[in-house]
Formats: sequence, C-alpha cells, structure tokens
Amino acid sequence: MLPPFMTEYSIGLDLGGTNLRAAAIDRTGSMLGSVSGRTAYSAGREAIVSEMAEAIAALRAQLGPSGLAGIGVAVPGFIALEKGIILNSNNLSSLENFPIRDELSTRLGAPVILENDANAAALGEKWIGAGRSVNDLVMLTLGTGVGGGIITGGRILHGYLGMAGELGHITVVPNGNPCGCGNRGCVEKHASATAVTAMAKLLGLGDSMSAKDVYDLALAGNEKARIIFESVGESLGIALATLINAFNFPLFLIAGGVIAAWDLFAPAMFAETRRRSFTFRTTDTRIERAELGNQAGLFGAAYLPWAGI
Amino acid sequence: MLPPFMTEYSIGLDLGGTNLRAAAIDRTGSMLGSVSGRTAYSAGREAIVSEMAEAIAALRAQLGPSGLAGIGVAVPGFIALEKGIILNSNNLSSLENFPIRDELSTRLGAPVILENDANAAALGEKWIGAGRSVNDLVMLTLGTGVGGGIITGGRILHGYLGMAGELGHITVVPNGNPCGCGNRGCVEKHASATAVTAMAKLLGLGDSMSAKDVYDLALAGNEKARIIFESVGESLGIALATLINAFNFPLFLIAGGVIAAWDLFAPAMFAETRRRSFTFRTTDTRIERAELGNQAGLFGAAYLPWAGI
Repeated sequence: MLPPFMTEYSIGLDLGGTNLRAAAIDRTGSMLGSVSGRTAYSAGREAIVSEMAEAIAALRAQLGPSGLAGIGVAVPGFIALEKGIILNSNNLSSLENFPIRDELSTRLGAPVILENDANAAALGEKWIGAGRSVNDLVMLTLGTGVGGGIITGGRILHGYLGMAGELGHITVVPNGNPCGCGNRGCVEKHASATAVTAMAKLLGLGDSMSAKDVYDLALAGNEKARIIFESVGESLGIALATLINAFNFPLFLIAGGVIAAWDLFAPAMFAETRRRSFTFRTTDTRIERAELGNQAGLFGAAYLPWAGI
Repeated sequence: MLPPFMTEYSIGLDLGGTNLRAAAIDRTGSMLGSVSGRTAYSAGREAIVSEMAEAIAALRAQLGPSGLAGIGVAVPGFIALEKGIILNSNNLSSLENFPIRDELSTRLGAPVILENDANAAALGEKWIGAGRSVNDLVMLTLGTGVGGGIITGGRILHGYLGMAGELGHITVVPNGNPCGCGNRGCVEKHASATAVTAMAKLLGLGDSMSAKDVYDLALAGNEKARIIFESVGESLGIALATLINAFNFPLFLIAGGVIAAWDLFAPAMFAETRRRSFTFRTTDTRIERAELGNQAGLFGAAYLPWAGI
C-alpha cells in the first residue's frame, strides 16, 4: 500500500511497426509521462534493446521507483510467453529467438511482462477503450500486418504457450497471397495496409502508393481504388464470420491505421459477415471501431501488471 | 449427500442424427442403464418430444429419483442457451424456435440443461475420453454435418448467447458449396460424410453411395475415391490451422463417423495444417482422434449437471 500522496503507476512499452513508445500510466488511465524512441529497427538488436531499457529506466527515474506497479512490454510476432521469447516476427527479425524479456529484466533489475502487441492492444481497448463495457471481445488490428487479440473473462486468451490470438493468419483465400508464416491467403495478406498497396500495384495504380494514397484515390471516385477497399472488406468479413461463429462474443473490434478507410471497406465487411454468419445475422453481435488509435498497445502494455496474468 | 448405498447418477439424452439415445451414468462414467429411441424425426415435434421425455422418465423410474443429480439434453443446431431454444437445425427443423428445454422440464417436473450436441460431445471427451488429460481443447465432429466444441478451463465455451463453437461453419472455400447457414464453403460442406457422398456423385462414382462405400472404393485403389478423402483432409487442415492459430490449445480432436477413414484423410490434413500454421509447425500441438465414438454426446450430456455451467 502506497502512502496517499504517492500515485501508483505502471510503465508500458509498445515496440510498434516503426519505432518504440513508452509511457507511465496510472490506474485510471492517465498518462503521467511518455518517451518516444528514435532508433531505426534496422540498427540491430543491441540498439533496440538498449533503447527499450533506457526508455523504461528514464520514466522510472522521473516518477520514482516506489510507486511502480510493474513493467509491461508489447512486441510484434509469435511469442513463446513462458520463455519470454519472440519466435517469429516479420518486422523485427533481429529480435527472433532472443530472450528479450529476461534481458530487459536483467538490465532494469525488475520483472518485465512480455506480451504480443495485438493482444496488448485488445487489452487496452478492454481497459479504457471501445471494449470497456464487455468482458469478452475479439480485436483485429489492421496495420502493416493484421494482429489479433482475444479477451475472455476480461483477460487475454493465451493458449498453452502464449501464442493464441494469431488471427491475422486466418486463411481467407485458400490459394491467396503467400505469407511469411508459410501459409497462403492469410487475412493479413488481404486486408492490411500492405495488402492495399500491393493491390494498387497489381491494378496498375502505381508502384509506390501508400494506403493513404489509395484511400484518397478511392474518395476521388477511382473505381479500382474503391474495389481494393471492397476486397479488404470482403476478406475481413470471411475472417469475422469464422470468429463470430467460433466465439459468439458480444463485440468484435477493428483497429489500426486502416480504419481511417472504414467508410470504404465497412459496407462490404458487414455484407460479407452477414451472409456468412448465421449467428451475426440473427443476434445483436457488434462489429465496431476501436477507440484508442495507435495508443491501444501502449495502454494495454501498461495495464499488464494489473491484469492478473 | 446421499446415503452410501445409493449411487448418485445423472441422465443424459443425445438427440443424434437419426434417433435419440438416453442413459443413466454415474460420476465415474459407468453406464447404469440406457434407452434407444425408435421415432423417426419425420414423425414431427410432438412425437419427438414425447419420446425424449419418456426415455428420461423411464431411466429415472428405473434408478429411483433420489439419486438423480440432474438431466442434460444434447441437441443439434444453433442453440439460444439462455432461452433454451433451437434456433436453426438442418436435421430437426420441426424443433426450431420451440421452447424444447422448458417443455421437457415441465413434462418431467425437473430442471433440464440444454446443450448443443457437438459441445456436449467435446465435454464428454474431456470428461472420460481423449481429452481427459487437458483442460483446453477444440473438437470437430465429422458426421452428417461438422459440429464444433470448445473446452476452455475444463468448461464449454458458450459465448454470450450460448452459440459459440459453431466450427462447422468456418469458411474453407470462399466460393465453395452452399450451406444451410447461408454461407458458402463451410467446412461442414467439404469434410462431412454428406460432403463425401456429394463429391462421389460429382465425380461420377454413383448417385447413392454412402461415405462407407466411398471409403471401400478408396481402399480398393480407386483414384477418385482417394482424392475425395484427400480433399476432406485439406479442408480440415485449413480449418484446423485457423483454430490452432486462434486458440493455441494443446489438443485438437477429430470425432464422428468419418474418422473411420482417418488413414485416408489424415496425411493431407496434417500436411495442410503444417503448411498453414506456424504455431502447429513449431510446437507440440496435438491433433488426435476422439475415443468415445458416437457415445461422446451421450456422456457429455450426462456430465452437464456436474460441469458447473
């Protein structure tokens, strides 16, 4: 128990798609301090790990060690939770098969809770975002890839090795685009920002268009660009129908940068889900946008020490 | 607490694909008595409901009401658990949107627990079958359709309306065979006994072949018949990869009459799952045959009163 004048806080770190962010957050979700990293991931393992440890240490020094409830770290990829290791990560191959959790813990002299970034984001939304009214939800985060997180009974579903929730690798096109996981036609390869730009290239819209460029083209009435977002919606609908049929949870959240294009992909997504899921058609199951934007993983990481894992 | 000379027992009833079976079963899984129904489902609702109530009443009379722990009833289809209603059932349309649970309860003067048959079967395997060593498993039952059951923490995953576990409606071929649920390409339409006979017809093997006939043909070396079971295995592999990626449970069980053809479909199923699931390829996740045969649902139904739902 802390004396009343001292605020209990937690430090969360989110190793996102391009750089890291860390924050000290109190139990009510107020951010007490934050740090953004500047290290390019291409700088290699030691540079990344050093910056992670330094960001956390700086926040701890700023707020004082006595109020610190714990440290949560969110990283992309398939995680072996018990071992604290990233087994496979398309964007962070330099950290694969390295004991990242124990290394951080040693450098900081404090326990660290490791979590998959999409799981952490789902937990963040459950805590203080679009999922705060329910105890069971599934979230798909559409970014460079597609991440998945499953919250059941208010807690992250981990599975026996901590690898559960890899929903970006649901097959939506059996002979579709190849994926780094070894599969073909993963929803990640048909409904992520990367998929949007790849489809733009295939349709001759341009070789170096961003997902935002394709979005602007679609808004301007370009038919090919519109079809790309319809395709994203259909792929999401196939995955969502499977998830709704399997889980029968009350809420399914869509998160990530691609939801800026919600109006373009959502009609096809809802139509496809309705067509493919009896449960969705006949119940009040909700599919909604997440609320915390790119801070969901950061909030979720900070909540990990309080989540009772 | 019962006096020591009196055995505590439960009555389970499984409304299977063709007729009903009921049994009185004790806490150790010993069957103390059983009844098989003879009513054709085409005889209509009143005939079916009467026979269900009579079968349960006969077992209760035989064993004495004082040792009865409870009554569990397993039925096929999408169930609204809280309301005790079958919303949609391809094989039992006469029972759709009828308060089957409350009607049985009224006729018997005792509470009745209703459950989806595939959920009950998964619970039965968890209790005294192939899943008894784990607390988390997913089971696919390949029969007339494909049923699904998810056991987490030793209990059935129900979702917020009791409709979870509808894994037979996972899409494995986006523009595949139409399904009664409204979808196309459900695994149920590509890996059930019904799918085997439909494929035999499409390949010109015969218009009225049973799945067993196709199996015998395949064993005798018929190439088309072999391809049918390979196709079953591939469809199962797509569904299993999605389930393994989502749940990361230690055990996935395949049950139902079609597992008699395990040697014919399992190689393609394992190859497809391995190819499509990073988690399966890199861990000791097991895919195995269920053990209780067509009695899994009956045992699971009987276990419902003890399952703490």
